[in-house]
Amino acid sequence: MLCLTHPTSERWVDIALANLDAVLVDHAHCEMKAATNALSLAVRASETPGVVAELVTLAEEELVHFRRVLSELELRGVALGPPPPDGYAVELRKTVRAHRDLGHPLRASQQIDALIDRLLVAALIEARSCERFSLLAQACEDRELAKLYQGLWASEHGHYRTFIQLAEQIRPPKVVAKRWEEMLDAEAEIIRGQAPGARMHSGARPP
Amino acid sequence: MLCLTHPTSERWVDIALANLDAVLVDHAHCEMKAATNALSLAVRASETPGVVAELVTLAEEELVHFRRVLSELELRGVALGPPPPDGYAVELRKTVRAHRDLGHPLRASQQIDALIDRLLVAALIEARSCERFSLLAQACEDRELAKLYQGLWASEHGHYRTFIQLAEQIRPPKVVAKRWEEMLDAEAEIIRGQAPGARMHSGARPP
Repeated sequence: MLCLTHPTSERWVDIALANLDAVLVDHAHCEMKAATNALSLAVRASETPGVVAELVTLAEEELVHFRRVLSELELRGVALGPPPPDGYAVELRKTVRAHRDLGHPLRASQQIDALIDRLLVAALIEARSCERFSLLAQACEDRELAKLYQGLWASEHGHYRTFIQLAEQIRPPKVVAKRWEEMLDAEAEIIRGQAPGARMHSGARPP
Repeated sequence: MLCLTHPTSERWVDIALANLDAVLVDHAHCEMKAATNALSLAVRASETPGVVAELVTLAEEELVHFRRVLSELELRGVALGPPPPDGYAVELRKTVRAHRDLGHPLRASQQIDALIDRLLVAALIEARSCERFSLLAQACEDRELAKLYQGLWASEHGHYRTFIQLAEQIRPPKVVAKRWEEMLDAEAEIIRGQAPGARMHSGARPP
């Protein structure tokens, strides 16, 4: 369960297992978005060289994972195709404190608040993805695919903590911890509110 | 000179050599943007799996180059800092055929035209960067830095052709070649119009 306050239901697992090709397509795009997002965070963190280097390493790892999922799609003869809609990430990003006054650019301290929130959003997405890799690894009857999920779980398990630690290089740990608690509550609401579907971050509400 | 029709003047080299720290900061951001751009192209090319895989490889190479430039900045005690404005890339992107009718989404064939143009914009940026790596490698008195530029030139030299070849996987080579000729002319105008400065893609107009 990592740190998350709202566990994924069995219903989500059932939907995913019945539509593994679609889940894999969405998953491939999630890995790609994670890489792109890490690079965009690196640019925003350009005043903190250690954070930049670590975010580039994370991006490189996500690209390795992207390739693994792409290979699995090729084995199955499934085309990658365009990215499915990702309401979960869209809603999470709305929690980023932007403080954008009408027409006024952000002050430096507001930019840092926004960067902390973006790092924590990335941590939440990693944590939720990892929880679901673990569920799929346990439930998946295809041994090779179960191994893929197990491997991704092992590799990405530490990422959510890494993002929190990067935030702690920029703001005091107590400040980060307080914001993290708020973000965890927001994430629980957001994942609960997602429509059911064969996606990594879909919900599992009864129809 | 690669394929470019407007050679960079000695004046640009003089400005760059007098401000190598600033050129390196801008260069680091260019490598990062090249990586991000390759990933964004990969998502747009998601119907063509071979193109996707090759773009991810290019992105990974750009990240390796980013690290090299970042190390050079660290050696020099120079902070990365935020990305300098990049008028050259902004102007080049305006040449992408968008065909966006008022409020109408792009048709599939228009999306492909736009993707071809984006691949060719990436090819132009690679070609121009490479031309300038070569000039810096020849002119730079710092042997280590000259070696860095020489190495980047060798590594990125083929990239512009790779982007053209990717475009040729999507549209017939003749169609790509015709568009490439138009884009080369546009690039010559754009680089000529850039203000002088200590940046990878600045101009060299007399003040």
